[in-house]
Amino acid sequence: MRTELLMLTLLIPLTAGAQTRTTGPWWPNAEWGAMDQAGASNRITAQKIVAALTLVKTGRTYEIGQVYERGMPMGGTRDFALRLVPAIEPTGSNRVLYNDEFVAAEIGQIGTQFDGLGHVGGEVRYADGSLHRVFYNGFTTEEMNAGTGLRQLGVEHVKPLITRGVLVDLPAYKNVQRLAGGYEVTLADVRGALARQGIAESSISAGDAVFFRYGWAQLWSTPAEYNAAALPGIGLEVARWLVERKVTVTGSDTSVTEVSPSPVQGAAIPVHQELMMKNGVFNIENMTFEELAADRAYEFLFIATTLRFKGATGSPLRPLAIR
Amino acid sequence: MRTELLMLTLLIPLTAGAQTRTTGPWWPNAEWGAMDQAGASNRITAQKIVAALTLVKTGRTYEIGQVYERGMPMGGTRDFALRLVPAIEPTGSNRVLYNDEFVAAEIGQIGTQFDGLGHVGGEVRYADGSLHRVFYNGFTTEEMNAGTGLRQLGVEHVKPLITRGVLVDLPAYKNVQRLAGGYEVTLADVRGALARQGIAESSISAGDAVFFRYGWAQLWSTPAEYNAAALPGIGLEVARWLVERKVTVTGSDTSVTEVSPSPVQGAAIPVHQELMMKNGVFNIENMTFEELAADRAYEFLFIATTLRFKGATGSPLRPLAIR
Amino acid sequence: MRTELLMLTLLIPLTAGAQTRTTGPWWPNAEWGAMDQAGASNRITAQKIVAALTLVKTGRTYEIGQVYERGMPMGGTRDFALRLVPAIEPTGSNRVLYNDEFVAAEIGQIGTQFDGLGHVGGEVRYADGSLHRVFYNGFTTEEMNAGTGLRQLGVEHVKPLITRGVLVDLPAYKNVQRLAGGYEVTLADVRGALARQGIAESSISAGDAVFFRYGWAQLWSTPAEYNAAALPGIGLEVARWLVERKVTVTGSDTSVTEVSPSPVQGAAIPVHQELMMKNGVFNIENMTFEELAADRAYEFLFIATTLRFKGATGSPLRPLAIR
Amino acid sequence: MRTELLMLTLLIPLTAGAQTRTTGPWWPNAEWGAMDQAGASNRITAQKIVAALTLVKTGRTYEIGQVYERGMPMGGTRDFALRLVPAIEPTGSNRVLYNDEFVAAEIGQIGTQFDGLGHVGGEVRYADGSLHRVFYNGFTTEEMNAGTGLRQLGVEHVKPLITRGVLVDLPAYKNVQRLAGGYEVTLADVRGALARQGIAESSISAGDAVFFRYGWAQLWSTPAEYNAAALPGIGLEVARWLVERKVTVTGSDTSVTEVSPSPVQGAAIPVHQELMMKNGVFNIENMTFEELAADRAYEFLFIATTLRFKGATGSPLRPLAIR
Repeated sequence: MRTELLMLTLLIPLTAGAQTRTTGPWWPNAEWGAMDQAGASNRITAQKIVAALTLVKTGRTYEIGQVYERGMPMGGTRDFALRLVPAIEPTGSNRVLYNDEFVAAEIGQIGTQFDGLGHVGGEVRYADGSLHRVFYNGFTTEEMNAGTGLRQLGVEHVKPLITRGVLVDLPAYKNVQRLAGGYEVTLADVRGALARQGIAESSISAGDAVFFRYGWAQLWSTPAEYNAAALPGIGLEVARWLVERKVTVTGSDTSVTEVSPSPVQGAAIPVHQELMMKNGVFNIENMTFEELAADRAYEFLFIATTLRFKGATGSPLRPLAIR
Repeated sequence: MRTELLMLTLLIPLTAGAQTRTTGPWWPNAEWGAMDQAGASNRITAQKIVAALTLVKTGRTYEIGQVYERGMPMGGTRDFALRLVPAIEPTGSNRVLYNDEFVAAEIGQIGTQFDGLGHVGGEVRYADGSLHRVFYNGFTTEEMNAGTGLRQLGVEHVKPLITRGVLVDLPAYKNVQRLAGGYEVTLADVRGALARQGIAESSISAGDAVFFRYGWAQLWSTPAEYNAAALPGIGLEVARWLVERKVTVTGSDTSVTEVSPSPVQGAAIPVHQELMMKNGVFNIENMTFEELAADRAYEFLFIATTLRFKGATGSPLRPLAIR
Repeated sequence: MRTELLMLTLLIPLTAGAQTRTTGPWWPNAEWGAMDQAGASNRITAQKIVAALTLVKTGRTYEIGQVYERGMPMGGTRDFALRLVPAIEPTGSNRVLYNDEFVAAEIGQIGTQFDGLGHVGGEVRYADGSLHRVFYNGFTTEEMNAGTGLRQLGVEHVKPLITRGVLVDLPAYKNVQRLAGGYEVTLADVRGALARQGIAESSISAGDAVFFRYGWAQLWSTPAEYNAAALPGIGLEVARWLVERKVTVTGSDTSVTEVSPSPVQGAAIPVHQELMMKNGVFNIENMTFEELAADRAYEFLFIATTLRFKGATGSPLRPLAIR
Repeated sequence: MRTELLMLTLLIPLTAGAQTRTTGPWWPNAEWGAMDQAGASNRITAQKIVAALTLVKTGRTYEIGQVYERGMPMGGTRDFALRLVPAIEPTGSNRVLYNDEFVAAEIGQIGTQFDGLGHVGGEVRYADGSLHRVFYNGFTTEEMNAGTGLRQLGVEHVKPLITRGVLVDLPAYKNVQRLAGGYEVTLADVRGALARQGIAESSISAGDAVFFRYGWAQLWSTPAEYNAAALPGIGLEVARWLVERKVTVTGSDTSVTEVSPSPVQGAAIPVHQELMMKNGVFNIENMTFEELAADRAYEFLFIATTLRFKGATGSPLRPLAIR
């Protein structure tokens, strides 16, 4: 058990009925309160939206998510089935036909996907030695889980993502086609890339969306390559910088955003825990920035609206960059 | 068979390989070409987006879609199942836990839903007497349908909906809590409501989104009432006006937008055919405008991004109004 | 915590690799060994099958399961969706058409259903005070559960059910149309019904299938009545008698077989625990015996073949009685 | 269009309400009537069952179907997803835990599968030149198809398969490990194999189940090999012999039973049409006979109970051979 997860034992009464929750190293969340479920999406205030809209000059719109389709790269043991439920016979004097589609899938965790706060947590040892399974803001699996969806931290709590977007183009900075599998992007890399792009680090501020281009979307149409065991990505160093810069959401053009395998010995997706579990910062995976990079479009209005599926752990979405 | 569906027999060669398609009363679409699959979303140009963004003054954001959840009103024989696929055991030295969710549903035709161009078509008698099943721009079921999704007119072709939104508040104009089931909203009603709201009819222009509040969202939490056989809505008169005004998308706070049962003797959802099949105009159902109405917020930036599920007939979405 | 669940602490090495399992009051199973996963289906030996087949005289076959269809009574938050994936266009010179169907459902826990050994377990306090979640033969949730199905106690381990079947017709014995909701069938009732039917209690022997008719299948077509809160059924008294008689499987014409609500203060489905968790005895729910009862057919060849879905907790099935 | 599909034009009134159905070369079915939906399962009479049971001497039972599991060979664009819906928290004073599973799949057309009469049909040119899409007994797609399942020819009409089973072991006769891909099993092969096995051809009689071992189940664990483009199997010659022998069901250890690609120029699965569409004879695919062959067990009691999923085109099942 990691010592950083050791926690205090002060029991505090919470507002949600009879619930009480012990405090911990990363909760209750000082910024948005002990019962908050929206995390860093709280930073996208009305003022932030107004400011972000001013970034648009021409209305040129970039699709920075992938199309969802049979045969796309899939992670783990997830599945995706879409079936046409077609018009059988025309109906009515106007001879109407209609088609539906039936989908069976890990809907929030396939293709371009938004990781909600109920997606990744961890087991934590309390000061009394007992183990507990907690997510963002200290919500426990006992409080959260139900067969038909999360009772807490469902993705429906996430606010619309309409904010300033910044792309960190690492292959352009490194002068490579794409980063190598297993390469950890350093903070020096990020700073170098931002400098090359003419974006002041200090400009990255509360509520921004900061995305990392690794060039990996070039492999989207070859799933075996795309899903390689070794993936480039950020590590805990850059994750903590994102937290310091108070971004709302990050993301990338791989299926995990973080470097894989993790350089932290024996650890599994520690950046996910750092961002989501401890700080309520969101992550969008399987994006594509090839067009933005070709246009050297590094700052833009970012729009992405997660679906409000009650109790879901994530969401499919259609992220856009508008200039 | 409706005589308006009778068609010419001129065979024309099309660009898509060996395909040929006979022309008809409403196709090939003069505005966007014989192979167009994006319909009226083509009207949302870069310039239109830039203009729409200027409508935002304070950044106040309204959710005008419903949350997707077990027990919400469902239409026809559609189903919605969401199951948590939970963390079983912690993984790695950092004791990671993660949850997914599995969804099985008519994903594009439940809750707040966007009807794509492959959703509603009709059977048409050709000049030679033969019957054909066609959708927008004359695409036939033979060209379109496949077990794993539409080969033509899939919702992935629809462009992002970022445009000027106008709400027509009918209960406010009629001075009622909500419209009565079965009431057909007339063009006079629409004009009266717009006048009351201080919105010039002439201001409604190419690419706009025009929504109708019937007050029906007040019944969302009582599905039996919400799904009554008799629903208020627009008829063909207003539908044709929407087409003339060149709107991109309409929508409402019922499950069909159009009046039900149809005043056209024996007809089934003829407004759907008028809008989608003939004119490529989209329709969003099961929205809610109660907060907009309370704030008398009748003009706004409208943002809705349909999911790009390849070959789907529609999409769930999270429509927003921003002022 | 029930004291009967308190357990010994002797750690024993098991054969499955590095696994060790503590012994408990009901495991390791003395009859079939510590690693057994087939439970009481082990009692259906080749000899038992041969003997059971001799019960058939005329070949008259009774369907004692229900048809699976939209609108049938469903339990809890389960769902059932079946969609036709139809022939779109004929293929080949012989113009073949083919249809498939896509099903999304709690496939093992809808309609006439067989409860496997991974379906019901319980939380048990060990002698050291710690709590553990165990199922049949002491398998723990840690050993069993995985997102894509059970790693232990999956229904694929259950042997084919081809054995002697006995129906206990309680409404006939009680001279009522059907038992009242909430009525607990006593052992005296069972003995009285068997006597009336001319079946010696002593004839019920290892491997038999013993079913209880409550008359509840008469309500199958009215789901609200069928799913009443108060259901007739057996209690722990009869459950323990079934264990003593060494039956392989029981079942009934309600959705739980056991009386509901449970007469055991605060308990939830304790008969399920007694039968499955502790003794490996199976349970088939939502059967129908109206035709058997009409024919006074109380002893028969019972055939039911659970599907071997790897890692499933139960199975749909088509139970038959042949005379 | 094949001339054998040309049909007479006599319109006959049918009993099903206002329906009328034109007669054709293979319908109405003389044997079981114009409205029959059970096909050759009608041949399994009570007498047939009694006779088949007498084949059992020792009760030794063979599993001749495969386990359904993630990664098994799948055909076409079908999918199979099984997810555990696990116990979250214990319930009640007895601390009950329970697991369910959610399955999303072409449930009747994956793994060991039974093809029902609504699965395969064809487009037929009538005498007036018009084309119609028909299945067994002349049921048309218009009569049959609905979004939520077949209205006619659903698998629920099929009677239980409890009959005499005969295995034709072709690799043993040919003295090979398994037949070569693309090899068409001839009637001479079948007769030779039966002679080798000491089974008189004349003994194969109405209601029997006749299965063909090609040895292909040896490849089950290597899906790419199992799903090779060229598969051994019977052709129209043997199919017509099966029809003459009046069998109820056939089957094999490949995914199609018939030779692939078809020797009939340009044809797709013509044996399926011959058996199912024209004669109501069923087909079970993806079976395994390796154990039966090892024991030279060529005649047995065959038991298989298709699930009564209303409106389904097929069924998963657990076929057994008992000796």
